[in-house]
Amino acid sequence: MKKLINRPEDVVKEALAGMEALHAELIRVDYESQVIVRADAPVQGKVGIISGGGSGHEPMHGGFVGCGMLDAACPGEIFTSPVPDQMLAATRAVNGGAGVFYIIKNYTGDVLNFEMAAELAAAEDIEIASVVTNDDVAVQDSLYTAGRRGVGVTVLLEKIVGGLAETGASLEAVAEMAQRVNANGRSMGMALTSCTVPAIGRPTFDLDENEMEIGIGIHGEPGCRRVPLASAAEVTEMLVNPILEDLELKAGERVIAFVNGMGGTPQIELYVMANELAKILRGKNITIARSLVGSYITSLEMAGCSITLLRTDDEILKYWDAPVHTPALRWGI
Amino acid sequence: MKKLINRPEDVVKEALAGMEALHAELIRVDYESQVIVRADAPVQGKVGIISGGGSGHEPMHGGFVGCGMLDAACPGEIFTSPVPDQMLAATRAVNGGAGVFYIIKNYTGDVLNFEMAAELAAAEDIEIASVVTNDDVAVQDSLYTAGRRGVGVTVLLEKIVGGLAETGASLEAVAEMAQRVNANGRSMGMALTSCTVPAIGRPTFDLDENEMEIGIGIHGEPGCRRVPLASAAEVTEMLVNPILEDLELKAGERVIAFVNGMGGTPQIELYVMANELAKILRGKNITIARSLVGSYITSLEMAGCSITLLRTDDEILKYWDAPVHTPALRWGI
Repeated sequence: MKKLINRPEDVVKEALAGMEALHAELIRVDYESQVIVRADAPVQGKVGIISGGGSGHEPMHGGFVGCGMLDAACPGEIFTSPVPDQMLAATRAVNGGAGVFYIIKNYTGDVLNFEMAAELAAAEDIEIASVVTNDDVAVQDSLYTAGRRGVGVTVLLEKIVGGLAETGASLEAVAEMAQRVNANGRSMGMALTSCTVPAIGRPTFDLDENEMEIGIGIHGEPGCRRVPLASAAEVTEMLVNPILEDLELKAGERVIAFVNGMGGTPQIELYVMANELAKILRGKNITIARSLVGSYITSLEMAGCSITLLRTDDEILKYWDAPVHTPALRWGI
Repeated sequence: MKKLINRPEDVVKEALAGMEALHAELIRVDYESQVIVRADAPVQGKVGIISGGGSGHEPMHGGFVGCGMLDAACPGEIFTSPVPDQMLAATRAVNGGAGVFYIIKNYTGDVLNFEMAAELAAAEDIEIASVVTNDDVAVQDSLYTAGRRGVGVTVLLEKIVGGLAETGASLEAVAEMAQRVNANGRSMGMALTSCTVPAIGRPTFDLDENEMEIGIGIHGEPGCRRVPLASAAEVTEMLVNPILEDLELKAGERVIAFVNGMGGTPQIELYVMANELAKILRGKNITIARSLVGSYITSLEMAGCSITLLRTDDEILKYWDAPVHTPALRWGI
């Protein structure tokens, strides 16, 4: 296992310490609860935005804590849901009196644990609302999920909802926007290679030198099919066509286009994919209003990529463009 | 060869097309000359800043074209110097009447070709100045270089000098700042794996499952030694100690700390390394004034990382903090 780590059991805590050391102006870490909190939390009168999930998908979610995005992130161990106590600690830390909003990716463990945290928070008179993202068109059910998995849309949603919350919007308004973003976004991913969970020490699955997996999840759970290696143009078609169909995107519509690397894919390949995506959308007269290209929701060192399209309008763009200052996403500040 | 590409010979041009399609508000691409130019170039009265080098190191340099950083980038084929004609085309495109400044990494091909471009530009009465970055403490000479190689400091220098040029500073002032940044920065890198140039189709070198290479360059050229796999703490010591010694950093000084991924290393590992770096610097009473963590100067899908430290002062920090808006680095705008 070739990794830049010390003991496998210390990876998550040490990475958190590294984040805090290098971004002390943005975040602080509560090591006992294993929670990353915005440095100025709680912001009085603002809805607190929390997300969380297994580690190994960095920069999601901890890299998105800061002004204009998340107030806190709860990282579990690698590919493992955080526990309700973490989420409750985060809830208390970001509660500014206007309610707290949970952004939950649709994985059974995450959903159950956030639900339990919401009950515990309610018992402390903290008002909670939530969204469960389920944008992955690849599979209906999977190893870890009933229904569709939550993937790339989660990143876009955290930015947009975070931007809205920063304006002092109500918990209802935040929840409504989150539902709207989730309903209008779809994703699909693929892998060229597997990845290795440090505590396990061997690849999660095997892929031959001449094959790839289409419809992969972010934990190495199975995709929808294993196929021979194909060109970037063909791979892009395999990912984008199911998205376009499911989202029923029509000529004249605008999207935020997100080309995401899975952790081990270099940026030059992401831009080759971006070029194919742009060609397909141009051919259908769909406009890329904004874009995000990079490795933002990853699966350790997996080589591969995912594409997310989010149908957009002026209001969504307004909050996408709003200032943000986090370790991994920053503009306007 | 597992890559998200079409034909190997089209990778660079297609990635440029992807960049232009997704960042049309920031950059335009001259495909004939293979040059990426800031969308609003030439900016009248501003020194034009140009860098360039082989492709395969993305986002460097094309991802750094935009307001507050580079006016143009000249990407060569993968791991191959761009040619003087590209540099001359870039020079003409960004010449706003205040001179043009070349940021050149110290590789023999790059240096010779930029020198020739400078002569051609001078013949057209365009004033040229330049800096050759040579921050890599690993090796004195290498396969591609007489003297030390230019690596991570180049990224920091492009930001700082770009910020200064945006204020309307003179060509002399830009050149002086560039020399100062280069003189005060040092880097060292390592690799866990090799990488594969698309047109070659096999790894540039071989590394056993239980070994890594310390002092690696960004083209897979040899490092200073091949050693057994070690912990993140040990690897960080191997990289940082030569930097500290060579830079003669003293207690009480401040640095910009740059923890860079080589392309195939996930961010969670970079933050484990960042934690080790922060511990070492804390122990020496050296303050991390600013930081950059991510894959910014890469070697295709190579797994590994490099560390760069730049001794800093208020003036350097002022231009580091200045607004920047490029595909890969953005703040304040």
